[in-house]
Amino acid sequence: MAEQPELTIQGWGPTGPDPSDGDLDGSLPRAARRHLARELGWTPRPTPSVPIAEIRLAPSRLPEEARTRLVGLLGEDNVRTDRESRLRRAGGKSYLDLLRRREGDASDAPDAVALPGTTEETAALLTACSELGVVVVPFGGGTSVVGGLAGVDPDDRPSVAVDLSRMSSVQALDVPSSLVTVGPGMRGPALEEALGAEGLTFGHLPQSWEFATVGGYAATRSAGQNSTGVGRFDELVAGLTLATPSGVLELGHPPASAAGPDLLGLALGSEGTLGIITELKLRVRPKPMACTYEGWSFRSWAAGLAALQRLARYELLPDIVRLSDADETRANLLMAAGTGARALRGTLRARGHAEGCLLILGWEGVPAVVRARRKTASTLLKEDGAIRVGRKVGESWKSHRFAAPYLRDKLLDAGLLVETLETAATWAALPTVYDAVRRALRESLARAGRRPLIMSHVSHGYPTGASLYVTVLADRDDALPIQQWLSAKRAATDALLGAGGTLTHHHAVGADHRPWMEREVGPLGVEVLRAVKQRLDPQGICNPGVLLPD
Amino acid sequence: MAEQPELTIQGWGPTGPDPSDGDLDGSLPRAARRHLARELGWTPRPTPSVPIAEIRLAPSRLPEEARTRLVGLLGEDNVRTDRESRLRRAGGKSYLDLLRRREGDASDAPDAVALPGTTEETAALLTACSELGVVVVPFGGGTSVVGGLAGVDPDDRPSVAVDLSRMSSVQALDVPSSLVTVGPGMRGPALEEALGAEGLTFGHLPQSWEFATVGGYAATRSAGQNSTGVGRFDELVAGLTLATPSGVLELGHPPASAAGPDLLGLALGSEGTLGIITELKLRVRPKPMACTYEGWSFRSWAAGLAALQRLARYELLPDIVRLSDADETRANLLMAAGTGARALRGTLRARGHAEGCLLILGWEGVPAVVRARRKTASTLLKEDGAIRVGRKVGESWKSHRFAAPYLRDKLLDAGLLVETLETAATWAALPTVYDAVRRALRESLARAGRRPLIMSHVSHGYPTGASLYVTVLADRDDALPIQQWLSAKRAATDALLGAGGTLTHHHAVGADHRPWMEREVGPLGVEVLRAVKQRLDPQGICNPGVLLPD
Repeated sequence: MAEQPELTIQGWGPTGPDPSDGDLDGSLPRAARRHLARELGWTPRPTPSVPIAEIRLAPSRLPEEARTRLVGLLGEDNVRTDRESRLRRAGGKSYLDLLRRREGDASDAPDAVALPGTTEETAALLTACSELGVVVVPFGGGTSVVGGLAGVDPDDRPSVAVDLSRMSSVQALDVPSSLVTVGPGMRGPALEEALGAEGLTFGHLPQSWEFATVGGYAATRSAGQNSTGVGRFDELVAGLTLATPSGVLELGHPPASAAGPDLLGLALGSEGTLGIITELKLRVRPKPMACTYEGWSFRSWAAGLAALQRLARYELLPDIVRLSDADETRANLLMAAGTGARALRGTLRARGHAEGCLLILGWEGVPAVVRARRKTASTLLKEDGAIRVGRKVGESWKSHRFAAPYLRDKLLDAGLLVETLETAATWAALPTVYDAVRRALRESLARAGRRPLIMSHVSHGYPTGASLYVTVLADRDDALPIQQWLSAKRAATDALLGAGGTLTHHHAVGADHRPWMEREVGPLGVEVLRAVKQRLDPQGICNPGVLLPD
Repeated sequence: MAEQPELTIQGWGPTGPDPSDGDLDGSLPRAARRHLARELGWTPRPTPSVPIAEIRLAPSRLPEEARTRLVGLLGEDNVRTDRESRLRRAGGKSYLDLLRRREGDASDAPDAVALPGTTEETAALLTACSELGVVVVPFGGGTSVVGGLAGVDPDDRPSVAVDLSRMSSVQALDVPSSLVTVGPGMRGPALEEALGAEGLTFGHLPQSWEFATVGGYAATRSAGQNSTGVGRFDELVAGLTLATPSGVLELGHPPASAAGPDLLGLALGSEGTLGIITELKLRVRPKPMACTYEGWSFRSWAAGLAALQRLARYELLPDIVRLSDADETRANLLMAAGTGARALRGTLRARGHAEGCLLILGWEGVPAVVRARRKTASTLLKEDGAIRVGRKVGESWKSHRFAAPYLRDKLLDAGLLVETLETAATWAALPTVYDAVRRALRESLARAGRRPLIMSHVSHGYPTGASLYVTVLADRDDALPIQQWLSAKRAATDALLGAGGTLTHHHAVGADHRPWMEREVGPLGVEVLRAVKQRLDPQGICNPGVLLPD
């Protein structure tokens, strides 16, 4: 099995040499730096993290009685209260998480870390914690960007992070039924390695792929870069085991069932509030025999959206779809150094696409079918005014697909605000949502001489609509950086909901989106979720402070 | 809008001339009749229904106070207690329903029929009935085959059938987003007519298509004959409105959302136990430009299953997939009269497929893609030993696709037991489930000199498995016909669950499958459903006696 490296405490990437090694100059081409400085009114300045040793961590509040009981269940090695263990399970990797950790604040760290090895141990742990009044926060990869690990318990009880890394192996593989049964702590690389040996793949590739776990994907309804083709993570879960304080649920009946409401769908997206996912049955597929990545360009965002909508309508969208708006396209082209990139910029200028929008398409599957789909789609794209810019652009995107969060650390070191947000809307509503979010962010983040850079792309296409992913860069307000982003996030969220977008397409709710949950599902919808939680978690120990509003 | 004819009270088909017009001789070729008599040990004999005028119906138990209150909400015309209205909403169309109705028993008829016209009226009706202690059973097409309309209230309260036929129009059409908003009482023909004018189709075609409603499809998680390609009904619901005694829920956020557990998935399959669906947002698609139906033959059931599994694995299954076992194939070939059918039987015999299994495939969509998929699939099918038997067989199936329930009435008139049941299982479990169900039915229905004919097909393929649909014919036990089927159904259900099948793939739970619901979702799963019901329907007035065990 592939090794599962731990994430660094104050940023992205595996723990190793000091993550501040290598400065911005090494990560960003000069043209891109100049573009950023000009766009944002930002002067690069060193704003380093405090050393890890200086991060403030309060003593563990786990009562000795509770610790003894958990040790009795899991063994001494699997109940930890040391500084390193607690710091590593503090919060996730949102901009706000990183700001706190970089400033030396670990007030959201758990009081202890428990590492159960089986469903039975997890269930026993939940029963014990329910009796002891100890809050339980499941910990998979620790990659949440919505405060999924940073909820605040209204009763301020001691908390235990339940690390699922001991439950991270393949339990069973049913090749004829294309089903694999895995532990929740398994990560993408290890899963792909295990399946690859059988000529199979799972194919879920979010940006967090190197570190996130399958349990986390399920709990948050993740979507990956290939999800337009292979499906969202929730569509690939054929069954799961959910350990709750009230017992263990075995959910899902592949291939499909009409036996009542969908209980599996209640566990998916439950973000640890109903219990802990301890096993998953996932749909796998043969490794694609054909893979083609390519780039196209549109003169405008509107033209690109219209063309994608037409492909979607005829079910001709490929596995990977990524349409960047003009701002993101410009930034991406500046990021790409070398003569190839220069030539591409020249071509686009010459054809009137200097302010154009780049589209990345990735086709995977059975060769003859991929060929027919790609050819038919290409005809429609050309009819809709797209020009083909070749495979190199596609391959280049593919080779950098996991790079953004690494770069973020460098940008944070140099005084920038860097965050992303996302939503989804019907094709009819998407342009309005796009405009509304940009306006809200622009107005919120403009300060004397400074303005944000807002880069957007559509990255998951459905027949009925698409997701919209937004990256925001701005000069950081060094005095009030957290408030600066909270204001912008509030404005953007109000705007996107008002325009008809969903609260989140694949990042989940967490603590950050919780205030809008009632607006998303209605007060009675929240009441239904509360009724389910009350039945499964009557003491409210399961990840309080996320998902459900107070 | 297409007219929506009412179903006859004692059988299938629209009300019109006496449905006993035309006897079995006119409906069944002689060879098929002889085959049935020989297989079953059955002598055709007239077992007609009692005249409709002789059906016994108890006086309405709806208190006058309750009637007055409902009339105040809906108007005099929309609260009915006359004999005809009540008889027409009594039960569904299962074999047991028909036995009762043919014998003159309408003890499951509602005490009144209410016809709300809007979501608001439905919500007000539910509030009133909750206060009045009146049970509410939503009535769409009345085509349930699992007792979905025949649940028994443990408290024996008066009941009202809520007929949704006044809410049966298109509310909105969002062409760019491929979404149509419709009332729950709309049926397939009317929906297709409305969409056809825009070059669109919905494409959900269960055998009950002429009469069933979209609200019913949602409440029961229906699947149609094209569902392998276009998706199950539940996959095509982008949103819905659920009126409950505790208020109105607006569920679903197209195209997709990661905002918590799936509440829409709780309403789908809820079978009227949580409230009444009053509006649906459905995904539509362009009318297919290419349609090809064709037949293939396999030497054996095992070979057919293996070939389908390979197509499924590579996502090469077409829109329609229907693999009949040897018993169903033989019966279908005997049903097809004419020289073409004779020639086909000769060809199959000559090629060693005399005991073979027929496969119907239906390809629909964009021509170039259909061509590539069909060609690739054909190569795999030939590798797996299938022989092509031509398009006529496919077209013939298509032209008879809605015929079976009409034929059933004739068979019932001639002394037969005729019923269907269905399940789904993973590809790995499917052969075991098939064997187990057949054995259970054979053992239960064998009597001196008589044995059942059990005909099966796989009709919905998924990457992970498929559904199995079983038609049973047997000489009816005229003394105890209901007990005869209840015993067989119990044995078959125990067998299919024991072998790893799901309780139901697309017929739903109703009253008939309710005793096995706890086995399907576990005791804690049932408790979760009860908690949701308690929150939305605290007085338990919403279709008690179905879905949830006592």
